[in-house]
Amino acid sequence: MEFRITERVPTASPGMSSQDALEMIRRKMGEYDSIDYVYILDSDTLAGVVSIREILSHHEILGDFMHRDIICFTPEDEPFDIPYLALSHGIKAIPVVDSGGRFRGVVPYDEIIRILKVEADRNMLHFGGVFHRVVDEKRSPGSMVKSRVPWLIIGVVGGTVTASMIGRFEDLLSGFIALASFIPVMVYMSDAVGTQSEALIIRKIAVDPSMNHLKYIKGEVLVAAAIGALSSAFAGLMAGVTRMNPLLGLIVFVSMFFSIIAAVLISTVSPLLFRRIGYDPAVATGPLATILSDFTTTLIYLTVASSLL
Amino acid sequence: MEFRITERVPTASPGMSSQDALEMIRRKMGEYDSIDYVYILDSDTLAGVVSIREILSHHEILGDFMHRDIICFTPEDEPFDIPYLALSHGIKAIPVVDSGGRFRGVVPYDEIIRILKVEADRNMLHFGGVFHRVVDEKRSPGSMVKSRVPWLIIGVVGGTVTASMIGRFEDLLSGFIALASFIPVMVYMSDAVGTQSEALIIRKIAVDPSMNHLKYIKGEVLVAAAIGALSSAFAGLMAGVTRMNPLLGLIVFVSMFFSIIAAVLISTVSPLLFRRIGYDPAVATGPLATILSDFTTTLIYLTVASSLL
Ligand SMILES: [Mg+2]
Ligand SMILES: [Mg+2]
Ligand SMILES: [Mg+2]
Ligand SMILES: [Mg+2]
Ligand SMILES: [Mg+2]
Ligand SMILES: [Mg+2]
Ligand SMILES: [Mg+2]
Ligand SMILES: [Mg+2]
Ligand SMILES: [Mg+2]
Ligand SMILES: [Mg+2]
Ligand SMILES: [Mg+2]
Ligand SMILES: [Mg+2]
Ligand SMILES: [Mg+2]
Repeated sequence: MEFRITERVPTASPGMSSQDALEMIRRKMGEYDSIDYVYILDSDTLAGVVSIREILSHHEILGDFMHRDIICFTPEDEPFDIPYLALSHGIKAIPVVDSGGRFRGVVPYDEIIRILKVEADRNMLHFGGVFHRVVDEKRSPGSMVKSRVPWLIIGVVGGTVTASMIGRFEDLLSGFIALASFIPVMVYMSDAVGTQSEALIIRKIAVDPSMNHLKYIKGEVLVAAAIGALSSAFAGLMAGVTRMNPLLGLIVFVSMFFSIIAAVLISTVSPLLFRRIGYDPAVATGPLATILSDFTTTLIYLTVASSLL
Repeated sequence: MEFRITERVPTASPGMSSQDALEMIRRKMGEYDSIDYVYILDSDTLAGVVSIREILSHHEILGDFMHRDIICFTPEDEPFDIPYLALSHGIKAIPVVDSGGRFRGVVPYDEIIRILKVEADRNMLHFGGVFHRVVDEKRSPGSMVKSRVPWLIIGVVGGTVTASMIGRFEDLLSGFIALASFIPVMVYMSDAVGTQSEALIIRKIAVDPSMNHLKYIKGEVLVAAAIGALSSAFAGLMAGVTRMNPLLGLIVFVSMFFSIIAAVLISTVSPLLFRRIGYDPAVATGPLATILSDFTTTLIYLTVASSLL
């Protein structure tokens, strides 16, 4: 995405004294968009940064107390990382340098807020299966249809594949028709737990991009096992009692437990894979993970039923 | 939610001259967190605001050129509106007043970013069916289970109700077992379109809280009708061709079209209702709308099949 930077910020050389810097800021105050930080340039290269507060409390040349570990945006960085850089380091504006380390300006506060807002909207829409094209543009009905149809077409194809798979179990189903009644709650439950996992992993990636994947997946599967055991036991009980059929209850319990684990794995691993191959993890996971988990869930349900009946 | 305000900002009386205000800011620069705006107080009441740039370009008393229409946060306002106030009015910090109009401080830029971040996370998690308790707290496995189980229990109850409803159509299903195979794609498609509608309405509420509800719903249903016609036709074709049964294709086409419209209505109206009764629209709509739309979709599908067979 495009974002706005400003060059209207105080810059100084490392040899300037703090008193001279303060005098310069006071004199040229009207020329700056922000005076939170003074950027120290060595020729054109960003060499350090000091805050206005630090300038007021020092009486040395800037080069003697400037911060040399600078949090900055380089051409290799992702624009959407800017808000997280600002938040996690508690800095008010992010300096931008080119590939040679030359100072280009800073991303000011209001622009950081705008970037965060665009990213939050994109995540929400992608998660809901709407392509992000609509975020910044006018919502014409035609563009809305174009943004929403692609995932639905993929859903129809996936759903038809699932229907053909179920077709192979039609003898089983016609012999025990009550099985069919519980298909919606089976696919609902694994999708619901999987969607929770997706919301959590997408948030986690944004907050902590360098997390340990394997450790996260293990923790998530453990939580899913606890959640899955609780809700499958309840669902099995409801199925067994309402149909007065303990075997149906057992089938629902066992297959729901395993399909919840499968859905959680699909929903946690696929955003990580999408990110690995360079896609926005939220773009393609919502609908795609649901289609995969619906197929897997139905397959597990009917396979468990076949072997228990 | 709690948020941080700072009182470390320049304040002045309406009778102070712009030159004196500038002198005061220069002298006390180290005492301020931000000097973007000077807040003009009449006794304790916030009477106006001027930007540092305006002070530099005027030579009058502040009361003569201050802005009296002040964008500010009052006790009746929602904290989550703060980032949208800042973004839509292009202001860098939001002043806070108490119920008597007395100035309490300002919400600084970094706090506005933090509020926006918390809101985006809450929306995403709520949308995914995870209670927001986890956002700010440590992710212990126990707290994760507690945050995720409530909606799942409701889902089991709703799913059992749906299963009982389907049970009433078991004669129909055993007479035409291929119908059962298409249940997953039926519930998938209406939920997928409904989830898109939810993402769009939750974003719309955040961006434009005073929108015209009826007009929005009408527009959304029109788009849904176009999307629904396209994808139902494709799904009907796939069903008819893969099973070589045109009647099955017709049943899928007609019932998918109407269940998509129903799901879009449920998913658009329920966030608006939740907001009307004082709940976060994202909290309860994701899973709840899906449960309702799964029930409605299955009922429409089997009713259409009964009448066409
Ligand atoms: Mg500033
Ligand atoms: Mg960098
Ligand atoms: Mg993203
Ligand atoms: Mg998506
Ligand atoms: Mg679903
Ligand atoms: Mg996030
Ligand atoms: Mg899903
Ligand atoms: Mg400032
Ligand atoms: Mg107000
Ligand atoms: Mg919200
Ligand atoms: Mg929810
Ligand atoms: Mg939004
Ligand atoms: Mg849904």
